Amino acid sequence: MANSRYEYVRSFELPDVLLANTWIVVRIDGRGFSKFTTKYKFAKPNDRRALDLMNAAAEAVMKELPDLVLAYGNSDEFSFVFHKDCVLFERRARYRLPNYFVLAPPNAAWHSRKLTTTIVSTFTSYYTFLWQTYFPAMPLTPPLPSFDGRAVCYPSDQNLRDYMSWRQVDCHINNLYNTSFWALVQQGGMDPRAAERELSGTISSDKNEILFSRFAINYNNEPEIFKKGSVLYRDVRPNSQTSVGHSRNIANLDSSFPCRPNRPPCHQKQHGPRHRCPIHSQRMEMSKTQKEKDRKKRTKAKVVIEHVDLIKDEFWEKRVWILSGRAG
Amino acid sequence: MANSRYEYVRSFELPDVLLANTWIVVRIDGRGFSKFTTKYKFAKPNDRRALDLMNAAAEAVMKELPDLVLAYGNSDEFSFVFHKDCVLFERRARYRLPNYFVLAPPNAAWHSRKLTTTIVSTFTSYYTFLWQTYFPAMPLTPPLPSFDGRAVCYPSDQNLRDYMSWRQVDCHINNLYNTSFWALVQQGGMDPRAAERELSGTISSDKNEILFSRFAINYNNEPEIFKKGSVLYRDVRPNSQTSVGHSRNIANLDSSFPCRPNRPPCHQKQHGPRHRCPIHSQRMEMSKTQKEKDRKKRTKAKVVIEHVDLIKDEFWEKRVWILSGRAG
Amino acid sequence: MANSRYEYVRSFELPDVLLANTWIVVRIDGRGFSKFTTKYKFAKPNDRRALDLMNAAAEAVMKELPDLVLAYGNSDEFSFVFHKDCVLFERRARYRLPNYFVLAPPNAAWHSRKLTTTIVSTFTSYYTFLWQTYFPAMPLTPPLPSFDGRAVCYPSDQNLRDYMSWRQVDCHINNLYNTSFWALVQQGGMDPRAAERELSGTISSDKNEILFSRFAINYNNEPEIFKKGSVLYRDVRPNSQTSVGHSRNIANLDSSFPCRPNRPPCHQKQHGPRHRCPIHSQRMEMSKTQKEKDRKKRTKAKVVIEHVDLIKDEFWEKRVWILSGRAG
Amino acid sequence: MANSRYEYVRSFELPDVLLANTWIVVRIDGRGFSKFTTKYKFAKPNDRRALDLMNAAAEAVMKELPDLVLAYGNSDEFSFVFHKDCVLFERRARYRLPNYFVLAPPNAAWHSRKLTTTIVSTFTSYYTFLWQTYFPAMPLTPPLPSFDGRAVCYPSDQNLRDYMSWRQVDCHINNLYNTSFWALVQQGGMDPRAAERELSGTISSDKNEILFSRFAINYNNEPEIFKKGSVLYRDVRPNSQTSVGHSRNIANLDSSFPCRPNRPPCHQKQHGPRHRCPIHSQRMEMSKTQKEKDRKKRTKAKVVIEHVDLIKDEFWEKRVWILSGRAG
Repeated sequence: MANSRYEYVRSFELPDVLLANTWIVVRIDGRGFSKFTTKYKFAKPNDRRALDLMNAAAEAVMKELPDLVLAYGNSDEFSFVFHKDCVLFERRARYRLPNYFVLAPPNAAWHSRKLTTTIVSTFTSYYTFLWQTYFPAMPLTPPLPSFDGRAVCYPSDQNLRDYMSWRQVDCHINNLYNTSFWALVQQGGMDPRAAERELSGTISSDKNEILFSRFAINYNNEPEIFKKGSVLYRDVRPNSQTSVGHSRNIANLDSSFPCRPNRPPCHQKQHGPRHRCPIHSQRMEMSKTQKEKDRKKRTKAKVVIEHVDLIKDEFWEKRVWILSGRAG
Repeated sequence: MANSRYEYVRSFELPDVLLANTWIVVRIDGRGFSKFTTKYKFAKPNDRRALDLMNAAAEAVMKELPDLVLAYGNSDEFSFVFHKDCVLFERRARYRLPNYFVLAPPNAAWHSRKLTTTIVSTFTSYYTFLWQTYFPAMPLTPPLPSFDGRAVCYPSDQNLRDYMSWRQVDCHINNLYNTSFWALVQQGGMDPRAAERELSGTISSDKNEILFSRFAINYNNEPEIFKKGSVLYRDVRPNSQTSVGHSRNIANLDSSFPCRPNRPPCHQKQHGPRHRCPIHSQRMEMSKTQKEKDRKKRTKAKVVIEHVDLIKDEFWEKRVWILSGRAG
Repeated sequence: MANSRYEYVRSFELPDVLLANTWIVVRIDGRGFSKFTTKYKFAKPNDRRALDLMNAAAEAVMKELPDLVLAYGNSDEFSFVFHKDCVLFERRARYRLPNYFVLAPPNAAWHSRKLTTTIVSTFTSYYTFLWQTYFPAMPLTPPLPSFDGRAVCYPSDQNLRDYMSWRQVDCHINNLYNTSFWALVQQGGMDPRAAERELSGTISSDKNEILFSRFAINYNNEPEIFKKGSVLYRDVRPNSQTSVGHSRNIANLDSSFPCRPNRPPCHQKQHGPRHRCPIHSQRMEMSKTQKEKDRKKRTKAKVVIEHVDLIKDEFWEKRVWILSGRAG
Repeated sequence: MANSRYEYVRSFELPDVLLANTWIVVRIDGRGFSKFTTKYKFAKPNDRRALDLMNAAAEAVMKELPDLVLAYGNSDEFSFVFHKDCVLFERRARYRLPNYFVLAPPNAAWHSRKLTTTIVSTFTSYYTFLWQTYFPAMPLTPPLPSFDGRAVCYPSDQNLRDYMSWRQVDCHINNLYNTSFWALVQQGGMDPRAAERELSGTISSDKNEILFSRFAINYNNEPEIFKKGSVLYRDVRPNSQTSVGHSRNIANLDSSFPCRPNRPPCHQKQHGPRHRCPIHSQRMEMSKTQKEKDRKKRTKAKVVIEHVDLIKDEFWEKRVWILSGRAG
């Protein structure tokens, strides 16, 4: 930006830096989607085309932002997860700041607004662009679909898992309610108010019973995408041994601390192969070259879409690289 | 959102409230647009279709968000301005909170992230959607266009005007440079590096001279949209007398303070027709009905696109309703 | 601070910058003072020694921080006001940062925490130190008195005046209540619960009536310090003409912009004597030397303690330098 | 606070909430202490009385705020550590808010400003009050000592330990420099500038050599308080078995989640004795009664002052309750 006597106005831009070494979740939500779904006659309680469109837009976001490790969506919302790893620090390091300015180079990527608006905008662009693929008979007309978003930091792995569980429980509860509600309306011929009254105060088992006894619907047989929502992650499983083996090889070890921003490499003797990254308190077994390889692997890895349980340990234990942040 | 044992994770969502009684500017910027403009072969130094597309998307944003009073754009950026008036307070009032919670009902509209992501998303949606209208021969393909954004508060009218001047001076300086650079390259046959060296260290008059003497280009005759950028505002001029006359009519005066959040209307005797809004320190001459009328007028008003000087007083003096926030 | 491999932990310090061109009010409140006042047998409803001690500590704060223009206190609270003027920018300028780092040199004076903790600490230090002067018969013993504090930005002069009015109305309402309550207890022989019930639901006139009819107390005759609280400001009135006259003298004019941070002086021709400070939108008639003089004047000026009305215009009209920020 | 038409000004108070489940460190620093130490003729390079006074003030802070688990100080600075445990959540729970307001009840204890100003004020109060005990021959006179402060969140235990290491390395480096500098000045007769030049560019071994060869000072024999600074923590060691044994007793287990704010106790069957606190991802073996006991134990525990190494594992392994947050 060119200089001028008016440039002082930049002083009013306040920083909104996100705390380092935390999981960053950006969740986006459709704006005014109850009106929107009516306008485009979405199937109720779930419109498979609409969910597939959400997933396609989310997949595009994952591909454009290789630092994202995980995404979860249902209905008109999607959550995107940045690893609490060193990634953002490395970006920061590009600025080569003196130490005392490390906090606030404006526009740097770990500003809350930057992450949030980038994800919201990329998602919206694909949602609008891909619309005709999923709704060929329903051309978009203004007002167009849009999303808002927020970024939240979660300090521990457990906090992150609980966040994912929270969204998935929410999906389940809403879907059971909606499935029951629309069965009463569409198959039971009730008007919406009566259906609402009917369901008021019921618990899960009541709704299961209503579905089964009145409409012969076994909720357990409903499609997983409706009951569980959609999980997106990079599948880095195949051929991963070499990288790990390599990275544990002392000979390959770079004794610098790639995680520390703005610091010259550290060559003090005491740093043996067992030293730890001071930021995320894990052993630092990866050399710079391997970090680069790791990142490439992540970028190339296929983005997988699954409709599986995120609450139990199994998902995380079978895909350890998601929490560990290590491809391969 | 449904309750569950995981809901505690909401506690990690930190508020990012914007200071009341300030002008709020949300500026959005194209992400990676130098690559993008190459991919779609934008005309250099300015592509009129691209600017018209930006303006069309901005006009749509203005129409969807009637609280916006002004927008200014050039190149791949656009700034949107919310009046420092009572509007956001009124939204807040909907929550009917006890006084001590007035600050942070989550998701409320004056959260920085909410305003910013809403504008970024709406703009992106229209930009992608309208692309084919402006570039019919150039279908969009991934990676798609996207924008980031930020919200900044400006306390005084002068700060706001200086912000607008800053962007317009920036537009001028960049455009003069780009016009000269591309003349040297396209008409002068220079390679880009040589053109850059040629312009290095020159001041405005040097560039004007290069354009005129070598390429017979009189910079003053360049299109205003290139030199000044684009200003969007609502034109509430015609038939505006009645409303003003009305609003000064004591008989019509509502002695409540519509600007104060969460407070019952104030009927104390001392509030005569001269009382002031405690928030924005202007006389409060509008009754609630008139406020409503005012808002409707604003919503219906034509959004005007002009390419005019924002730095001198003339623009503001001829369109007093922009700073005053009073339609009519 | 010395460098070490652990220094990365500074990255976790997040900025908390205050918005420029706003009035900054730091309000401090006694922590657990109801217990504290019981321990030291403060007279009820008001203890003159305790108020004088608060005022003495506040006066010391005003003297140590010459950028403060106003303070107001009552009971166990005190509010300190920084002018919305250029002062904080000038401090920032000391850093000589490149423009893009203007926002967050850590530890700089306009960080919320820095202003707030400095005032809280200075106030506490004097309160503890001066205790024995005001309570010679009551030596302090642990737990000692302490205060918490907060900083709030107010964009307009009216917002600031309304803040001051808010605190003074609060003082009045509390004092009327307390005066009535303790009259019922001390003179009327009621137990505290009965007194509370008696006053429950009463309005001001009821309390005035109770005081007058039962205890022959005319509330209007109560000491002003109890009814109005205490206002502190610098009295720069005498001999102030020369400075103003001087400052309007074109010959003395420095065409630089002392208010703009990080910018070389501006020598463009168009800046005549009528140019305005871009930050606080006032004419810039003061040269650097005069600014210095102005500051010295402020530092030397007597700090005045008065018990006067802050709500009506009179206070502000007779002491124009408080809002204008111009000594002399 | 009493209601009035001015109360809208509270809307300008912006929240500054600290992220949950993180270690909170409040560090305070003496303001203008180089001038202050000259005024009161502090011994150089270290004044034992001054350090003892700092430690006494810090001990008082630890005693008044039982949620503090650790403190570390050297020179004119002190760092106070709140456990990342549930404590602040429990305070929050007192508000009994609906879930969607959980974030920002104003004045609540986990606001950055509240924690910071409370610690700064309490420390200052004791520093001023205890001064005469440590400097009986040197009565305080204005300007009085004061401190500023800041709060920083550290997400992981390793981040916290690195913070402590950072401060202790800083103490060591500064003390070695100062010891060398003052030896050159006081014993070597150099003027300060010459001493500074002499030390410029030297590394630790050079300074050790200067001290040893010229002044027969073996730096290793210097007092630990100078070399290591001062660590304060609660000693909950003795008789701690019963509590732990008890808390692991399933029969005593309360199946509610005391850590979750604003939620009714959870009695779902799946919570066996192995359930985890969702906030800090540790097993929840303590009943409410035991939590209460735990807190009492902490409050009663002796605050220990030691001058020991915080960088190696030993300190933390021998005092596991500091990181675990479990007394007993």
